[in-house]
Amino acid sequence: MDESLAAILQAVAAGQISPDLAQVKLQGYSQIGDFAKIDRTRQARTGFPEVIFGQGKTVTQIVKIMQHMRDEHPVVMATRIVPEVQAELCLHIPDLQYYPAARISALQPLEVPITAPGTIAILTAGTADLPVAEEAACTAQLCGFQVEKLWDVGVAGIQRLLNNRMVIDRADVLIVVAGMEGALPSVVAGLADCPVIAVPTSVGYGAHFQGLAPLLTMINSCAAGVGVVNIDNGFGAAILAGQILRTAVRLQKI
Amino acid sequence: MDESLAAILQAVAAGQISPDLAQVKLQGYSQIGDFAKIDRTRQARTGFPEVIFGQGKTVTQIVKIMQHMRDEHPVVMATRIVPEVQAELCLHIPDLQYYPAARISALQPLEVPITAPGTIAILTAGTADLPVAEEAACTAQLCGFQVEKLWDVGVAGIQRLLNNRMVIDRADVLIVVAGMEGALPSVVAGLADCPVIAVPTSVGYGAHFQGLAPLLTMINSCAAGVGVVNIDNGFGAAILAGQILRTAVRLQKI
Amino acid sequence: MDESLAAILQAVAAGQISPDLAQVKLQGYSQIGDFAKIDRTRQARTGFPEVIFGQGKTVTQIVKIMQHMRDEHPVVMATRIVPEVQAELCLHIPDLQYYPAARISALQPLEVPITAPGTIAILTAGTADLPVAEEAACTAQLCGFQVEKLWDVGVAGIQRLLNNRMVIDRADVLIVVAGMEGALPSVVAGLADCPVIAVPTSVGYGAHFQGLAPLLTMINSCAAGVGVVNIDNGFGAAILAGQILRTAVRLQKI
Amino acid sequence: MDESLAAILQAVAAGQISPDLAQVKLQGYSQIGDFAKIDRTRQARTGFPEVIFGQGKTVTQIVKIMQHMRDEHPVVMATRIVPEVQAELCLHIPDLQYYPAARISALQPLEVPITAPGTIAILTAGTADLPVAEEAACTAQLCGFQVEKLWDVGVAGIQRLLNNRMVIDRADVLIVVAGMEGALPSVVAGLADCPVIAVPTSVGYGAHFQGLAPLLTMINSCAAGVGVVNIDNGFGAAILAGQILRTAVRLQKI
Amino acid sequence: MDESLAAILQAVAAGQISPDLAQVKLQGYSQIGDFAKIDRTRQARTGFPEVIFGQGKTVTQIVKIMQHMRDEHPVVMATRIVPEVQAELCLHIPDLQYYPAARISALQPLEVPITAPGTIAILTAGTADLPVAEEAACTAQLCGFQVEKLWDVGVAGIQRLLNNRMVIDRADVLIVVAGMEGALPSVVAGLADCPVIAVPTSVGYGAHFQGLAPLLTMINSCAAGVGVVNIDNGFGAAILAGQILRTAVRLQKI
Amino acid sequence: MDESLAAILQAVAAGQISPDLAQVKLQGYSQIGDFAKIDRTRQARTGFPEVIFGQGKTVTQIVKIMQHMRDEHPVVMATRIVPEVQAELCLHIPDLQYYPAARISALQPLEVPITAPGTIAILTAGTADLPVAEEAACTAQLCGFQVEKLWDVGVAGIQRLLNNRMVIDRADVLIVVAGMEGALPSVVAGLADCPVIAVPTSVGYGAHFQGLAPLLTMINSCAAGVGVVNIDNGFGAAILAGQILRTAVRLQKI
Amino acid sequence: MDESLAAILQAVAAGQISPDLAQVKLQGYSQIGDFAKIDRTRQARTGFPEVIFGQGKTVTQIVKIMQHMRDEHPVVMATRIVPEVQAELCLHIPDLQYYPAARISALQPLEVPITAPGTIAILTAGTADLPVAEEAACTAQLCGFQVEKLWDVGVAGIQRLLNNRMVIDRADVLIVVAGMEGALPSVVAGLADCPVIAVPTSVGYGAHFQGLAPLLTMINSCAAGVGVVNIDNGFGAAILAGQILRTAVRLQKI
Amino acid sequence: MDESLAAILQAVAAGQISPDLAQVKLQGYSQIGDFAKIDRTRQARTGFPEVIFGQGKTVTQIVKIMQHMRDEHPVVMATRIVPEVQAELCLHIPDLQYYPAARISALQPLEVPITAPGTIAILTAGTADLPVAEEAACTAQLCGFQVEKLWDVGVAGIQRLLNNRMVIDRADVLIVVAGMEGALPSVVAGLADCPVIAVPTSVGYGAHFQGLAPLLTMINSCAAGVGVVNIDNGFGAAILAGQILRTAVRLQKI
Repeated sequence: MDESLAAILQAVAAGQISPDLAQVKLQGYSQIGDFAKIDRTRQARTGFPEVIFGQGKTVTQIVKIMQHMRDEHPVVMATRIVPEVQAELCLHIPDLQYYPAARISALQPLEVPITAPGTIAILTAGTADLPVAEEAACTAQLCGFQVEKLWDVGVAGIQRLLNNRMVIDRADVLIVVAGMEGALPSVVAGLADCPVIAVPTSVGYGAHFQGLAPLLTMINSCAAGVGVVNIDNGFGAAILAGQILRTAVRLQKI
Repeated sequence: MDESLAAILQAVAAGQISPDLAQVKLQGYSQIGDFAKIDRTRQARTGFPEVIFGQGKTVTQIVKIMQHMRDEHPVVMATRIVPEVQAELCLHIPDLQYYPAARISALQPLEVPITAPGTIAILTAGTADLPVAEEAACTAQLCGFQVEKLWDVGVAGIQRLLNNRMVIDRADVLIVVAGMEGALPSVVAGLADCPVIAVPTSVGYGAHFQGLAPLLTMINSCAAGVGVVNIDNGFGAAILAGQILRTAVRLQKI
Repeated sequence: MDESLAAILQAVAAGQISPDLAQVKLQGYSQIGDFAKIDRTRQARTGFPEVIFGQGKTVTQIVKIMQHMRDEHPVVMATRIVPEVQAELCLHIPDLQYYPAARISALQPLEVPITAPGTIAILTAGTADLPVAEEAACTAQLCGFQVEKLWDVGVAGIQRLLNNRMVIDRADVLIVVAGMEGALPSVVAGLADCPVIAVPTSVGYGAHFQGLAPLLTMINSCAAGVGVVNIDNGFGAAILAGQILRTAVRLQKI
Repeated sequence: MDESLAAILQAVAAGQISPDLAQVKLQGYSQIGDFAKIDRTRQARTGFPEVIFGQGKTVTQIVKIMQHMRDEHPVVMATRIVPEVQAELCLHIPDLQYYPAARISALQPLEVPITAPGTIAILTAGTADLPVAEEAACTAQLCGFQVEKLWDVGVAGIQRLLNNRMVIDRADVLIVVAGMEGALPSVVAGLADCPVIAVPTSVGYGAHFQGLAPLLTMINSCAAGVGVVNIDNGFGAAILAGQILRTAVRLQKI
Repeated sequence: MDESLAAILQAVAAGQISPDLAQVKLQGYSQIGDFAKIDRTRQARTGFPEVIFGQGKTVTQIVKIMQHMRDEHPVVMATRIVPEVQAELCLHIPDLQYYPAARISALQPLEVPITAPGTIAILTAGTADLPVAEEAACTAQLCGFQVEKLWDVGVAGIQRLLNNRMVIDRADVLIVVAGMEGALPSVVAGLADCPVIAVPTSVGYGAHFQGLAPLLTMINSCAAGVGVVNIDNGFGAAILAGQILRTAVRLQKI
Repeated sequence: MDESLAAILQAVAAGQISPDLAQVKLQGYSQIGDFAKIDRTRQARTGFPEVIFGQGKTVTQIVKIMQHMRDEHPVVMATRIVPEVQAELCLHIPDLQYYPAARISALQPLEVPITAPGTIAILTAGTADLPVAEEAACTAQLCGFQVEKLWDVGVAGIQRLLNNRMVIDRADVLIVVAGMEGALPSVVAGLADCPVIAVPTSVGYGAHFQGLAPLLTMINSCAAGVGVVNIDNGFGAAILAGQILRTAVRLQKI
Repeated sequence: MDESLAAILQAVAAGQISPDLAQVKLQGYSQIGDFAKIDRTRQARTGFPEVIFGQGKTVTQIVKIMQHMRDEHPVVMATRIVPEVQAELCLHIPDLQYYPAARISALQPLEVPITAPGTIAILTAGTADLPVAEEAACTAQLCGFQVEKLWDVGVAGIQRLLNNRMVIDRADVLIVVAGMEGALPSVVAGLADCPVIAVPTSVGYGAHFQGLAPLLTMINSCAAGVGVVNIDNGFGAAILAGQILRTAVRLQKI
Repeated sequence: MDESLAAILQAVAAGQISPDLAQVKLQGYSQIGDFAKIDRTRQARTGFPEVIFGQGKTVTQIVKIMQHMRDEHPVVMATRIVPEVQAELCLHIPDLQYYPAARISALQPLEVPITAPGTIAILTAGTADLPVAEEAACTAQLCGFQVEKLWDVGVAGIQRLLNNRMVIDRADVLIVVAGMEGALPSVVAGLADCPVIAVPTSVGYGAHFQGLAPLLTMINSCAAGVGVVNIDNGFGAAILAGQILRTAVRLQKI
């Protein structure tokens, strides 16, 4: 649909769209109640929807935002949704699907087709890092990317990683999730020939300080080519990985 | 050149290469004195040379590593080289070029041709962030990437950024360098449709804690699609940007 | 009423006030039980009542202080009152009003008239910052100031802020509330021509450290003219904003 | 001068101003070399010039910015200028004045007239806090504000403060500068009926952590109405104080 | 009783005490189960009993230690006892008294007589600091010291402190308890002519970091003569105050 | 059993083991579901089994790993198992033993024989440190080492330690567990003539920061010969102690 | 001399003292230049002079304060005076004595007589802690207290302390100075029957963080009766020790 | 020589040793000047001499301690000796040898014979970690241990480590030295079957915080059997390694 200024104004003049909708289109966001402003340009710009960060929002707020977004987006998703919240959301939006391992709720067609080239490989150091890795995997898949998973290949048993080196070799972008001391991204980046996104997790105890230790490890990595996201931020890692693959698409078109 | 195991062993048998060189090729690194082991697989794997991190190494060590590498790599470079060290290095390697704004020394052909598609745009929040940004720019250019620079567009005068939005629009990957409170990457990532690499700098004072403040800002960015590197790590940002563009190339070939 | 030393002593002599009340007036505070001393000079001095900080006080203590203060102040308010505490307080003070979004309890006339010139504009970066912003708004309104609210205009979608620039333009003092990386006050201060009060919130996760990240961001703001208050301290921001508007009133009288 | 879009375009058409200057006027900033972009809207908007933060800039950069700004601003100033830098600056700008106690360089008329109503009172806890306090005082005076100074009234000898209470009483805005434990702003805010700006300093040792201790003290102040700026940021405190007095002026005009 | 080596050995020889008890007397501590060793020399040495730190111990452990100690000490006390634990303790030790404000349980004669000269004055900055202050007061009283209390005299209303200056003047040692920014000990030490013990509390929020802020404030106090104990350590403050008064007694005897 | 490459391949050829088992033997780990990879080389290499770190794993995951491991290891154990988890585990593995003081679950023969020379002495500073010390003791005993325990010998009553000096003298390796200020390892290392492993615990309050304080104490120990493990990591201390004793065994064989 | 209000006013009336001096006497402090206000009440109140903290003050400021104070105080002293500053001070005040080990300058009679009862024992853990300990010793001696020194008795060789236990036994107040892990005060407090003042020092490296490690150790001491002062604050420890002994004197008079 | 109490007293009686020397022998340490007490029991107990920690000691102090120790110890050594200090030391002790890479000075026979069984292997992650590793190597060799070195095998080029796995396999105790993110010890411990001592170094920049990052990494290692020493503490690592090998010797004798 033509969303240029001229086209929008002509559509208003022709009575095809209301002045309110025209305002939303021109200002680039929708107002929901008085509590939220949804970016309408993001999907056009980045290919990703405005995803709802569920933590700290009330059920009512999440419901209203989802109901607003579902008309315009093929996929509507919310992260950091615990089962209790999902149960309440379902009372208002019965067709809302839930991915418990990833703590993600989504409105979507039955199966999201893979629309982008390339593979995002996601690795974890330990079994306890799975929730964060699943948040990344689920986000990437809902956005139409192909994902390969490799769990529990932490550096203390390095042969577990080396025996699965083909996963690293065939990836186009790597998401490496690690708690405890967070050393895995450095080793992986030394073996890989593609970008590495490092995700520290809050899995650990003692001088781990809820993820500060692996965050510092990853920021100080002696291997170049590593970009770090926030502790437990599987979602952000997936979006960054998606951006990287989309850049490839864009360059191909040139 | 064919570097398969069979080919190397045949070359040894034929007396074409020495057993010593064969060992280097097979073990993947070269031993320099007893103090360094240079990764020989990295360039083949990533397209980047093993770059010398100059800080904490003696002049003698840097010279020996450079002399060893110059036979095998088209570009040999060292980062974190202050002018006093460069002066000493030149006594041993007279044709060593110096990029003072970036504090980089390099052995290279007169002009490094651009060999990769895409553009790396590098932005700074302030004038004092230039040394870090120049380290990124110089690294990227020595590795054959095209660079566009935009300095001093910090968020306190947001129109400076908005008036240069075309730089963001035409970039394929963005490196955003900021000290003080480090807010620029969040704003840029909200405007961009490509990956953003955030580089906090040690520019600031007081509760800045030598870059901890902008590092935390960038790690906590409310904009998705941002990968963070270490404080003042312009080099690492350039390598990650290069990896991203190389991934695009690889996907094109498929 | 004349509260000079001479007048008070004459009133005691005339039997118009008791020696006890005279003591309170002269020493400047009232003793409540043995656990609290209420500043009687503050309202005369600043125009604000001594507000009860509810956190860490028992219900009995809050009730006794409120009962003591209600005779002398037109508005009596307590902050950080969770619904469970409000329910208990109402058993003792049935006419106590509650503002749940702001977690504030107050004794007051039906509507507090606006008694000061100027407008306090309150902005939030995200929806989850609302409780802190509402604490600021409710405090300001109970103290007789005019408030304008603008929610969810964080920097990752900068057009949301730019499209509401008129709110910034017509404000006389700005309170900017932000969690996550806390970048909003810097951008706002670059656009505003009035004082900016920055309030970091504990909204975030990971390397956010319960608000330390946005606090550092705001303290390091590259925009001048920003004063920072404690994490989640919406109340303190409102009092400071009120002080600023009252200064204007005082200067007008000169 | 009329700076509306129409007027500027007519002036270009009439050959009165160059297209280049018109561009600067319309985009709101001036480009200096490739390293700086000077905000032209700030003075119009806030009444303060774009002040040069000297730390981290080269002498050449400072000189070029000053030479660019001197045509358009009545006052041009740079902060954090140590005597050695001032000596070099004078070689290029002979009429540059220096305020050594404040480490400020300025181009200005002989005496800056007081153009704003109200008084900024500046207090220090100790003698060693003077450089920060003088930076605040000098900035405020160069911007045309009236300043009253009160040094060495720290809380360990509370009668020094109480005996000078008239300074607090006649102030319209207070800047309180303190190192060590930084307790002075809390006591002052309890006595004052105007806004208090708290400036922690790096004066101290041991568990002071270069100003972190007084910064935390001031952020946690039990007295409401205190806004905090960065450690040693006398300049920022003065700008905020100026903004507060200018707000009063603006409200008077209404 | 004569506890010299010779006397103890003679008592064993005479069958007056068992070899086991002799061992305890000579080694200086009693073994309780395998989990605790109670110092028997402390009371003789310091005049204070070995007090049980209740936090982190099981009910069974506390009961066994109390039962062991009650034969030998006039006062047996445990700190950090929450009401739920007290209820369980009473099932085993029915005559155990409880001081809920101080969270202290004690076995003792009906009223502990004052056995030491001098007065310990205990001050708090706010009402919420009372539990820590009461722990100090109750400890001191159970050890036979005279205590004077002054609550809610924080520095934001300095006249509350100044009007009670006589409490400071007549104290022989001061315990000053403060949360929030913890500025009270500095002001008190500037007014007092006796030792000041500063106790930071965990009362606060935001950048308070559970008491780190007031701890740093007190450690950095610009007033000399202040000794600091751990956050919320009312018990330790009382013991130190008691040691100070006991030193006076000892010196008097010389 | 002969586990050489040749032997394994012959066994496959002879149909004695399946190709799947051969793969596990050759790659060095077993795959359990998709969530865990169990190191099979560790026991052969170190004499210790791959122990399950229970924290952060689901009951289902722990059960599957235990069931997989029980065929191949004489001892299968999991740490950080709270009683509620143990109750659930027993539903699936009825013969699972539980050591509540150590929070360890284990599958094992009735009594684990002592198979290694030497004694591991374990000391605690206080009674509240017992859970960590018991985790160390139980781990060591399940691995076949001899353990001697000495509880509650903290430095504030130094005679308790000195009177038990024979425990230090007869130890071959010492594990010293301490919370609060964590000073005990320094004193013990000054008395011992064997390696000392220091374990900080989270026992404390206030400026203890969940074990950071004793961790720093132990890392900064003025006594040489001290190795530190993570806060509350009794398990890791036991494994390190076991490694030290096993080194002795290995050297004896030479 | 009679310093009551009546006496001072009569002295002014009689022309015996100037109005200026009367003002100083009544307001309790002297104004020196515009940069310092010297507390005149402190000596009367505490028996100690207002000591000059030399760090951060210019030579001119120190000289002016000393010249002002020397008429009224028997002892005038300044701490944190490095030899270069002392050399400059001597140009203006030739009879200024210097104690290099303590970095203290003083104006005083030839020998300061011991005027207070009791002994302050000062212990250090290591040889490198001497400068801080000497600052404490020199301060105490200049204030007229008796001092006993015991150096290099750190806990890693506990017999060094135990063999000198008589120093602890005969002390009336103990100052314990320790860097590295700072464990000494806990051990000493367990042996002593008098107050212990703990002084952490910046002696150490690595995870010592310039004294943070021993500061935390001392604040978390498991021994009660320990008051802590700032890192390297030997002066403050001496003043607190002096206050403790003076309290004894005061109680004796009652 | 027989050092029992009886033997010493008989020797005094026989005039064979002086009462002074007898006192030293019985109290276990020698007094040097008033500033140091040298532990005489350590060598007998641990086999290592009391090594002088040079940092923070004056040249005079080091010389006196060395002169005192040289009569009684075969090896006398001091660590943290920079070349300037060594030059001064040589003026007083001409035969003092210097190991510049390790910054160690020593008095010793020409070659220290290897007196203990086993091999200490020392690994570094990078070239810049050499000074710390050499301190460990030199200390171990001066104490009579056999050392094998392997430099520059950091995890970013994992094949450098894997190709040298035989060094790990033949070691009896491993010292692993790493700066930057400090991941090497985890990988090594996963490959080794002997104890691993991890040494973080201050080599790094930005969020490295002078070694805090690798220290946290090592403390949080997911590999069991790792003991950590202070940042840059090569000396301490060597002593701990030596203790481990000596334990083996002791167990062999049993």
